[in-house]
Amino acid sequence: MTEFSEENHLAEALRRLDSTADPRLKQVMEALTRHLFAFVQEVRPTEAEWMRGIEFLTNVGHKCDGTRQEFILLSDMIGASILIDGINHRKAEGATESTVLGPFHRADAPRYDNGQSMSQDGKGEEVRILGRVTDSQGNPIAGATLDVWQTAANGLYEVQDAGQPDFNLRGLYTTDDIGAYEVVTVKPVSYPVPDDGPAGQLLRTLGRHPYRPAHVHFIVAAEGFESVVTQLFTDNDDYIDSDAVFGVKDSLLAHYNGDATGWRVDYDFGLKPAGGGEQHRTGSKST
Amino acid sequence: MTEFSEENHLAEALRRLDSTADPRLKQVMEALTRHLFAFVQEVRPTEAEWMRGIEFLTNVGHKCDGTRQEFILLSDMIGASILIDGINHRKAEGATESTVLGPFHRADAPRYDNGQSMSQDGKGEEVRILGRVTDSQGNPIAGATLDVWQTAANGLYEVQDAGQPDFNLRGLYTTDDIGAYEVVTVKPVSYPVPDDGPAGQLLRTLGRHPYRPAHVHFIVAAEGFESVVTQLFTDNDDYIDSDAVFGVKDSLLAHYNGDATGWRVDYDFGLKPAGGGEQHRTGSKST
Repeated sequence: MTEFSEENHLAEALRRLDSTADPRLKQVMEALTRHLFAFVQEVRPTEAEWMRGIEFLTNVGHKCDGTRQEFILLSDMIGASILIDGINHRKAEGATESTVLGPFHRADAPRYDNGQSMSQDGKGEEVRILGRVTDSQGNPIAGATLDVWQTAANGLYEVQDAGQPDFNLRGLYTTDDIGAYEVVTVKPVSYPVPDDGPAGQLLRTLGRHPYRPAHVHFIVAAEGFESVVTQLFTDNDDYIDSDAVFGVKDSLLAHYNGDATGWRVDYDFGLKPAGGGEQHRTGSKST
Repeated sequence: MTEFSEENHLAEALRRLDSTADPRLKQVMEALTRHLFAFVQEVRPTEAEWMRGIEFLTNVGHKCDGTRQEFILLSDMIGASILIDGINHRKAEGATESTVLGPFHRADAPRYDNGQSMSQDGKGEEVRILGRVTDSQGNPIAGATLDVWQTAANGLYEVQDAGQPDFNLRGLYTTDDIGAYEVVTVKPVSYPVPDDGPAGQLLRTLGRHPYRPAHVHFIVAAEGFESVVTQLFTDNDDYIDSDAVFGVKDSLLAHYNGDATGWRVDYDFGLKPAGGGEQHRTGSKST
């Protein structure tokens, strides 16, 4: 038996992982053990503090149910989710940057023609979002699909709000022969992430607000290209520099131009060729 | 707004903690963010792997209830709990080492005289555990209390087993004028930690067993001294080198000597003076 000390305990804990058959699980557990122990040795928690951490995680778990995922919310608000996104979807010349999916996507939204509105109740300020979908060299992609969803003017997605028609403000659009699309919707608003649970309580204790800047979600996909999960953010939103879930990127800022006919946003999407997605597993930053 | 990149995202996530009023919480969250991000950047999880982690933590949370604390079990089995114990209770010359409390302590055990058995059902092989409680210089401490508890011969604590009398194998003993004590009990056995939940599933996936080597729990306390929470481990147990919760320390090995009258263990406890407990908060390893 190895005599216990803070110094040799890490070696002992790592030795216990030697029996792990799955090499990836072994790699993950070894890294987790090293980084967790380094955290503990840096902050040197009292036993009461450790127990508060245990109780916090327990409360997060108890808040999760079929429609609420408090651990994802926690991962989002501490900035881990956007880091995972960045690792898995590297920025590439001519390609639209990705950002977090969020918990409100629904499959099988209604199909709309370009120029048709995905608002089913006509509430809110109308906006046309239009542009082209291209490859990274700027060549138009015909037949690309844009899966679009957003909150209503009251800050709620239709699944959170019995007052909205089913699939309100969700739509599938397809690019025409020159790669052009035109989504018609309403101007999005900023809204708070669900903050009635332990993650929201932590946000308040950290002196942070729960708001996301106004945005429209997109998944843009085309045969032979890597799909991109992204959002367009209203560039002059009050929360543009402090998104509660760290989703904003400069290249995803959208400017709303207003005139007598309503709001207009011009935005072109670029897609990477398919098959470049697993670069992160090589472990090299230069790839 | 700072442009997102893996490199500057850490700085941005740390900047969001600047509004934290409680300096200790700020320190803990900053360290957590740095170490968590370093873990993520090392293992580069796919989005599917991250989701498996989220689901695992959710299942751990859902397993917790009034009588089961799966996050404590998880903390124990990855070796974090014993590290916290080591940080908060430094080894000192002449003083008994501490180890994990475990989830089965109960207050208000029956008081017994030295030499009286704490077994209420007479089952198992009788053992006398005897010795002295002293200060770190070896001077006897009269009137010290020993709060003792353990499993029965079937590997179950009485709270887990409707077949045992209430408070079976739990007792409070007091040292006499020369600091001597004598606990009479039954020989403890090795037993598995509760392994029907996600922590147990992880243990199996890691190729590890759920067993703890046989042990007797003690909390030794006296006026003017720091109480010690500890366990005496049966030195020749099959699991002595692979305790599922990393609780074993060389100085806590107990040898069972057998003769015609039964088993006997000789063990002396040493206590540190009170008031030295918060050394770890100075942050210096040399204190």
